[in-house]
Amino acid sequence: MVSSISLLFFTHCHSSPPPSTTRPLQMGPTSLRFLALHSSLAPSSSSHQVPIAAMATGASSKVIDGKSVAKQIRDEITAEVSRMREAIGVTPGLAVILVGDRKDSATYVRNKKKACESVGIKSLEEHLPEDSTEEEVLNYISGYNDDPSVHGILVQLPLPSHMNEQNVLNDVRIEKDVDGFHPLNIGRLAMRGREPLFVPCTPKGCIELLHRYGVSMKGKRAVVIGRSNIVGMPAALLLQREDATVSVVHSRTSNPEEITRQADIIISAVGQPNMVKGSWIKPGAVIIDVGINPVEDPNSPRGYRLIGDVCYEEAIKVASAVTPVPGGVGPMTIAMLLQNTLSSAKRMHNFD
Amino acid sequence: MVSSISLLFFTHCHSSPPPSTTRPLQMGPTSLRFLALHSSLAPSSSSHQVPIAAMATGASSKVIDGKSVAKQIRDEITAEVSRMREAIGVTPGLAVILVGDRKDSATYVRNKKKACESVGIKSLEEHLPEDSTEEEVLNYISGYNDDPSVHGILVQLPLPSHMNEQNVLNDVRIEKDVDGFHPLNIGRLAMRGREPLFVPCTPKGCIELLHRYGVSMKGKRAVVIGRSNIVGMPAALLLQREDATVSVVHSRTSNPEEITRQADIIISAVGQPNMVKGSWIKPGAVIIDVGINPVEDPNSPRGYRLIGDVCYEEAIKVASAVTPVPGGVGPMTIAMLLQNTLSSAKRMHNFD
Repeated sequence: MVSSISLLFFTHCHSSPPPSTTRPLQMGPTSLRFLALHSSLAPSSSSHQVPIAAMATGASSKVIDGKSVAKQIRDEITAEVSRMREAIGVTPGLAVILVGDRKDSATYVRNKKKACESVGIKSLEEHLPEDSTEEEVLNYISGYNDDPSVHGILVQLPLPSHMNEQNVLNDVRIEKDVDGFHPLNIGRLAMRGREPLFVPCTPKGCIELLHRYGVSMKGKRAVVIGRSNIVGMPAALLLQREDATVSVVHSRTSNPEEITRQADIIISAVGQPNMVKGSWIKPGAVIIDVGINPVEDPNSPRGYRLIGDVCYEEAIKVASAVTPVPGGVGPMTIAMLLQNTLSSAKRMHNFD
Repeated sequence: MVSSISLLFFTHCHSSPPPSTTRPLQMGPTSLRFLALHSSLAPSSSSHQVPIAAMATGASSKVIDGKSVAKQIRDEITAEVSRMREAIGVTPGLAVILVGDRKDSATYVRNKKKACESVGIKSLEEHLPEDSTEEEVLNYISGYNDDPSVHGILVQLPLPSHMNEQNVLNDVRIEKDVDGFHPLNIGRLAMRGREPLFVPCTPKGCIELLHRYGVSMKGKRAVVIGRSNIVGMPAALLLQREDATVSVVHSRTSNPEEITRQADIIISAVGQPNMVKGSWIKPGAVIIDVGINPVEDPNSPRGYRLIGDVCYEEAIKVASAVTPVPGGVGPMTIAMLLQNTLSSAKRMHNFD
């Protein structure tokens, strides 16, 4: 998940003064109409496909409801976990290693643990103090690597600065790398004819959202904004595997707006609040907003609220579909982690 | 190297009748003037940089002379190989495994062997019959993996169809994977902050040509045509590492011409003779043509000649620089193989 580290001031799409009230995300009654962009395409045969939730405010504005898709996926996983337990007596297990006392990391780990419990996946957690040595972390990884009841190992990032993140991540057995960050998995993701054992959770969640909403990627222009190892880069590789024509826009790109405006599908993962304005968006485009940026908001009880990379209020007028923040990609990331853990357990036990 | 398997009929840029004579590549006197596209850039500080060779036919047309750059690189390698031998008594060694009787493969292997000899690299060759088993090939790889005098192992592709290419390539020790095709190397190439041990030779040669001709990639629009594992995909990753804004055009792209025309830098690797017409090219663009396509030519003593993916005659009028075919990327591929072998030997012996 891309997240600005510092708390940014309340950011508006434009420099005009903020409206006195924030327009709430209105996830109204679902509609069976598909995106204008895809109206000429045959409806997907996937039984998982759900229709775009039309906003109550207008048929032309559509919200991609990640929360409800993630719920649906978690239900599917729950059923599969229980089928597996009944058939072969195996419960998928996820081990999480957390080092140090970062509050956000602790929250992420707690959420992952809760999500595991909710679908019947066993979760193990090792919480090590901030001043642990790299060797201690590697020892725990080694234990989980050898533990047959553990099918996925997740090292919560960032690690304390005295540790070499690369060393630590490389130590996770590739068969248990549910985060999909191992270079061998990334290499297989990049190569045609190869299959990664795991795909990184956030970009996998983006593509899954597009699939479940019946958005065809084949032959479409796609722009990925951001080229991080955990979201932008693997998202671009995944879109290309779906036969999209992909351009990657990044901090050195001289004309990001012009390039982004050519896209039928935009995935933004930069951690810049409201960077993508309405003028960046081609009418009818589908937008997946991965950014989760905290911005000051005196009207919020917490003093801040979360917004995406995309100026939602402008995007919803131009695009045919947009993910909200929160409630878009966020819930999908954890759902994909559960899915990766389940499929790892299935693979290890040859269970179909 | 991308190469059409079948011999194509003589293909022209347009459907108009062919000229009675073929305009020869004119690699005239070198010029110190840089490309128009890069005239505002500071000259590169690289001591290796060579000026664009101006075509005798007009200052606006420039030929990127891969043959002469490759020669220069081979001279540098010769000097390094001899320095290494004198200093620590080690000669870099490349082992090539050839299976079967494909004439083109035999030619490639012979050329690689000759190139090794010309720079002082020891070359070993194992020529196995077409009906060898995969196990036999793996045995040879295993032997070379353990042989300390071998610093690079190359399995000539394609392998006979009864073998699993993926199995065979995966068996080459990553420290000797001078072809750079191992998924671990590709993964590291894709990831920011990671370094592959080897970069695949042909795309590496493309980028090296751009470097040596002082073509800055940072912030430039680059289009890669083709997404093969051995050229297009790694070329796109390399361009992105150079901070170019990269789009990948492929067989499913609906408007390849329109996208390609936006590029400051084009790398074409599809194996379609004369596919990229003048109308695809933005004035001043730099073009690297990886295609090597045999087309019938009754005027040639062999009955055919080699042409690129790019319609050279049209490109040379529009682009600021173009690689010819042959004499462009081809010689660079072998030079990069020698460079990878040398750096492998240096790495194994901690020689700087």
